[in-house]
Amino acid sequence: MGTLAKELAGRFIVIDGPDGAGKTTQVDRLAGWLVAQGVSIVRTCDPGGTAIGNRIRQILLDPAAKEMSVQCETMLYMASRAQLVAEVIRPALAGKACVLCDRFISATIAYQGAGGTDTDEILAVATVAVGNTLPDLTIILDIDSETGLARINTNLDRMESKDLAFHRRVREGFLRQVRESPDRAIVISAAGTTDDVTKSLQEALISWRFR
Amino acid sequence: MGTLAKELAGRFIVIDGPDGAGKTTQVDRLAGWLVAQGVSIVRTCDPGGTAIGNRIRQILLDPAAKEMSVQCETMLYMASRAQLVAEVIRPALAGKACVLCDRFISATIAYQGAGGTDTDEILAVATVAVGNTLPDLTIILDIDSETGLARINTNLDRMESKDLAFHRRVREGFLRQVRESPDRAIVISAAGTTDDVTKSLQEALISWRFR
Repeated sequence: MGTLAKELAGRFIVIDGPDGAGKTTQVDRLAGWLVAQGVSIVRTCDPGGTAIGNRIRQILLDPAAKEMSVQCETMLYMASRAQLVAEVIRPALAGKACVLCDRFISATIAYQGAGGTDTDEILAVATVAVGNTLPDLTIILDIDSETGLARINTNLDRMESKDLAFHRRVREGFLRQVRESPDRAIVISAAGTTDDVTKSLQEALISWRFR
Repeated sequence: MGTLAKELAGRFIVIDGPDGAGKTTQVDRLAGWLVAQGVSIVRTCDPGGTAIGNRIRQILLDPAAKEMSVQCETMLYMASRAQLVAEVIRPALAGKACVLCDRFISATIAYQGAGGTDTDEILAVATVAVGNTLPDLTIILDIDSETGLARINTNLDRMESKDLAFHRRVREGFLRQVRESPDRAIVISAAGTTDDVTKSLQEALISWRFR
């Protein structure tokens, strides 16, 4: 077993960040690269990743559910996450796989936080939902809000401009988490080309010293 | 406006208790009686009571979801409850209606508590889900577990006998909440006839002094 395979066995790694950072592409690439390095990985995503989680995800993503309160939203994300941890993440870590998860609690802190929910409240709920199954490393793929929104939309109309302030709060919510937990989180710029970002991610994983 | 109508305006009353206590029948009767007394009421139920809540309720009650973790279950109940409070209960109380709710946080404390979740953890999550919208009065319709189970099943087989221990913990969970908050909760025996129980409920509401 190579050094990287040894180092990453049983580690829980989350890739998160603002919309438009190219997160999904990079998780795909990272997963392929890790497998090529001989790392045993379980790739999953939050919300979703289980049958129950996918049903919850459908409620969350339904555009008809406009009347959903931010508290309900927070609880639904946590419900999906609790099931994902119990059914997928905890068994995978126990089996010494490296878990690569697209979004996690960090996303609730950034998004529902930007919607007005207090970080301490989110963390209190998260403790009940996932117990001590927390990421060993959270990688924030960072992009400025204008560029991120431009990548997912062709043009910013009035409503999307209103969204801009929200997305700036989201980005700041992600960056704040890294500032507050530098031993468990890093920022990687997603401003470069896809290849640049992949290379930065690989270098970060090779050089990271897990606590 | 009569004394009872004045006393109950803007009050949040929960009816809860073990299975087989005849809760739904009694809430029906209580609602009818209160309306006849000139009390403006909003009757609702938890989980459910909203479009989003009903979708969550479907996931909770799906027998196929056997693999659901108790933490996921707790979060789903809280999600439905958060939406119910935001969409129905809070506006009704603001409009000075008396809200009559079939089950609430007390049920999560009793059931998910019997499934192993700590009461303090449930209360911490509830604080985020519903804020300070807590019942002014919780009425526990109490029934011993054998009688309760016999009312909902014709016979107790091996599995249902195994359920008996669980249902005893649930009942104790309800009774403990009343012991710990006698200023906000009462127990009414559901052992008598339907008419007896209705009469006890009416008398309890007439004599209760809200804080």
